[in-house]
Amino acid sequence: MTGNGAAPVSAASGWARLAGRHPLLAWLDAALRGSGQVIFMDNPLTGLLNFVALCWGAFAGGTTLAVAIGAVVGNLVSTAAAYPLRADRAALRRGLCGFNGLLVGAGIPTFLAHTPLMWLLLVFAAAGSTVVTLAIGRWFDARKLPGLTFPFVLTTWLVLLAAYRLPGLPIAALPPAELASQASAGGGLASIDAFIRAALRGVAQVFFVDNPVSGAIFLLALAVESRWCAALAAFGAAAATACALAMGADANVVAHGLWSYSAVLTAPAIGCVFLKPGPRSLLYGAAATLFTVIVQGATATFAGTLGIPALTFPFVLTTWLFLLAWRGLGTDAGQ
Amino acid sequence: MTGNGAAPVSAASGWARLAGRHPLLAWLDAALRGSGQVIFMDNPLTGLLNFVALCWGAFAGGTTLAVAIGAVVGNLVSTAAAYPLRADRAALRRGLCGFNGLLVGAGIPTFLAHTPLMWLLLVFAAAGSTVVTLAIGRWFDARKLPGLTFPFVLTTWLVLLAAYRLPGLPIAALPPAELASQASAGGGLASIDAFIRAALRGVAQVFFVDNPVSGAIFLLALAVESRWCAALAAFGAAAATACALAMGADANVVAHGLWSYSAVLTAPAIGCVFLKPGPRSLLYGAAATLFTVIVQGATATFAGTLGIPALTFPFVLTTWLFLLAWRGLGTDAGQ
Amino acid sequence: MTGNGAAPVSAASGWARLAGRHPLLAWLDAALRGSGQVIFMDNPLTGLLNFVALCWGAFAGGTTLAVAIGAVVGNLVSTAAAYPLRADRAALRRGLCGFNGLLVGAGIPTFLAHTPLMWLLLVFAAAGSTVVTLAIGRWFDARKLPGLTFPFVLTTWLVLLAAYRLPGLPIAALPPAELASQASAGGGLASIDAFIRAALRGVAQVFFVDNPVSGAIFLLALAVESRWCAALAAFGAAAATACALAMGADANVVAHGLWSYSAVLTAPAIGCVFLKPGPRSLLYGAAATLFTVIVQGATATFAGTLGIPALTFPFVLTTWLFLLAWRGLGTDAGQ
Repeated sequence: MTGNGAAPVSAASGWARLAGRHPLLAWLDAALRGSGQVIFMDNPLTGLLNFVALCWGAFAGGTTLAVAIGAVVGNLVSTAAAYPLRADRAALRRGLCGFNGLLVGAGIPTFLAHTPLMWLLLVFAAAGSTVVTLAIGRWFDARKLPGLTFPFVLTTWLVLLAAYRLPGLPIAALPPAELASQASAGGGLASIDAFIRAALRGVAQVFFVDNPVSGAIFLLALAVESRWCAALAAFGAAAATACALAMGADANVVAHGLWSYSAVLTAPAIGCVFLKPGPRSLLYGAAATLFTVIVQGATATFAGTLGIPALTFPFVLTTWLFLLAWRGLGTDAGQ
Repeated sequence: MTGNGAAPVSAASGWARLAGRHPLLAWLDAALRGSGQVIFMDNPLTGLLNFVALCWGAFAGGTTLAVAIGAVVGNLVSTAAAYPLRADRAALRRGLCGFNGLLVGAGIPTFLAHTPLMWLLLVFAAAGSTVVTLAIGRWFDARKLPGLTFPFVLTTWLVLLAAYRLPGLPIAALPPAELASQASAGGGLASIDAFIRAALRGVAQVFFVDNPVSGAIFLLALAVESRWCAALAAFGAAAATACALAMGADANVVAHGLWSYSAVLTAPAIGCVFLKPGPRSLLYGAAATLFTVIVQGATATFAGTLGIPALTFPFVLTTWLFLLAWRGLGTDAGQ
Repeated sequence: MTGNGAAPVSAASGWARLAGRHPLLAWLDAALRGSGQVIFMDNPLTGLLNFVALCWGAFAGGTTLAVAIGAVVGNLVSTAAAYPLRADRAALRRGLCGFNGLLVGAGIPTFLAHTPLMWLLLVFAAAGSTVVTLAIGRWFDARKLPGLTFPFVLTTWLVLLAAYRLPGLPIAALPPAELASQASAGGGLASIDAFIRAALRGVAQVFFVDNPVSGAIFLLALAVESRWCAALAAFGAAAATACALAMGADANVVAHGLWSYSAVLTAPAIGCVFLKPGPRSLLYGAAATLFTVIVQGATATFAGTLGIPALTFPFVLTTWLFLLAWRGLGTDAGQ
């Protein structure tokens, strides 16, 4: 620890002591860590900065206030639901029962109209995501495989698919369901500046925010806890953006970060979070990042046929495959 | 046991003694219990009453004689197939190898035209459902998770999807495959009477019967073995019907019980069959019932894109998730 | 061993000795065995003959040279990728890390245009199929269930679905995505000769080759190691062809072997490879063969909605179900 790191460290340990004493503060602490866990960080400060980035997006454009509020509500509700469901207390305290609910809470107001019924459903779905989190955790127990953001993906997909049959939940911004047909050639990004903004938007899209400044704040939030992770997330965003462009993907979609947000999570997940960091895991993480781009396109086609977004399923599938294939998983897994 | 319960009890034990002596009667007993197991009851009288309800539907409208015959054939064939497949004898005797075949046998004539080839396929598919039942049983072994009606869902989906490519199996009544688009507002049910009939039809739709009287007989069949289960099934039907209406679902579809039949199974499954009954399991079962309504809409959209019905997949998925998430599953599971 | 088998046997053991000494030859040997493992044979001569059949198809029509080259490249790359991924050495030597890559390498040039980017992607996807192979292997570990060709199916599906969004990978020959609608009656095959050619094409279609002579060579390649397997593969092809015709499938599709290629694999898999051969396994294999035909139609409808081919998923799903349902799997499994 360097000298100029001392102040936040003592503030952090002060907060940890406080949170240990009051149940309500413990809940808040778990929720803040849950916000951090979206990007693998068990750190309340990361969670706070993520929230700042969400608010920036709501203020400066790229998302709405309802999304930021939904994220907070989803996080608090899903964390609270973990208590009566008797989740493992250590996991709960580390925020592992909140990050899927946060994403459910951000996702639903992104795609559905902001009616009172939507808010009611958001609360129910956030609590439901905790059930899914515990179910997946049990299912993967023996294999020491993390559930990642799959509970968020499954819960949100179910809600959005159901909305098509429920006029009480008007759809605001879902891609219309359509049969696959090959797109025509997609142009490119005009400048290095446009490329950097596309990559930063990719980082922000993890939280449904379409804003490069928010992306930079999310990277900062990562760096607070781990500079390696921040570097790998930035690498994932840049590599996926470049890769998608090289294969002719629609430049407009790439510019909004929609080809890279899953890779933003895969690169650190394989490169330094779940495997012991080192040259082998870095190379393996780079391969997983490219694989994620293929799965991103595949999921977009599959989900597009059904009229729903890909969400972070490409990250989930790729990371599960690459973790399972890794010899020695369970002995050197980080989380 | 009250005094007026003595006669059926002694009749039941007489039947059990008889069934223990003759292999053919043992097979019949297993099939009757298989009929009961569709609604979780290891009771031949429940099975008999279920058959009465099916016949009533065929006689009074709401289903056809072919569906009732298909159910009996499917039940007998799938139970018989369990012997050469060397299924666990205790499970076989309790009817656990027959209820999926019964549903396959009821489902195929509901959706395909009644040709000789259809009947041949029905026999083959019913036997196939026993293979799927044993496969799922093995797969879930270590987790003490029940296969529920998934073998029925998978087998029937495979047959119906295949029929699209097989003109020798003319489709009689499948929803045309269509891309998802949000329905417009759906009206409501005119009266409390219409509501009750919708809920009772939901109970009957578990067996593909669209008739409220049949629904009442199915509830009676449940009550023969467990009044709790009957009450929870009725609750599931009513809650799902109300919930679907509140979210604007098409009132015509709701009136035929097609938004509630899965919840009819989820509510007792979570509330009193697979978890130890009590206030916690009841609350949990109520949450699972609401969750089932969302999954019902989602599955209808997904399956509708492929041109197939949702069947009881919403019940299966929800019950698996809620059972897996329950801390202590395997120590207090009922079945 | 009969007298006239002595020469190939000593040649084979000479080759095995040679392969044991040089790493490069060990790699070639593993790749040849990988080619044989597509049809379950741990035999380099089978692998060589399979390659001859592929070349015959490229020369005489029924496939292209690019498919034959892609198969070789995919096989070599995926086998090579197994070394740094630290695959189990025994499995690697038996070719179990190469057969999925071979099929990925044959499949991609069958469906996508032959551009430099396609070749780059082919190499990456072949290596990716090794990751999927190891992941599935780990996942199925405890159940002693083989991964079969699922890694090939998943990897190829992902690449093809992604191609719809990537104009840099022009689609050459994918079925257009379309909603299911029942086909009209399909005619029949004109003669017994046409029937035999359809069945032989079914054998060849396992390797994406639409040529009856190649089918005969693939059967010969099987017979080199196991006449039982060759007979069962031929039975699977004939039974599935007859069965599809009896149910009214489009005769033109049947004539190209597209209703039978999965059954070509299921019949030997259940009949003699993974279960102890005997009258029970043969009967069971026959049932599995018919089941495969239903799954073939179902997968074609499902995948057709998404604009992708069924590949060998029907074989994979059926074989998994029938193996899991078999009492005693793991004690008498062959592989």
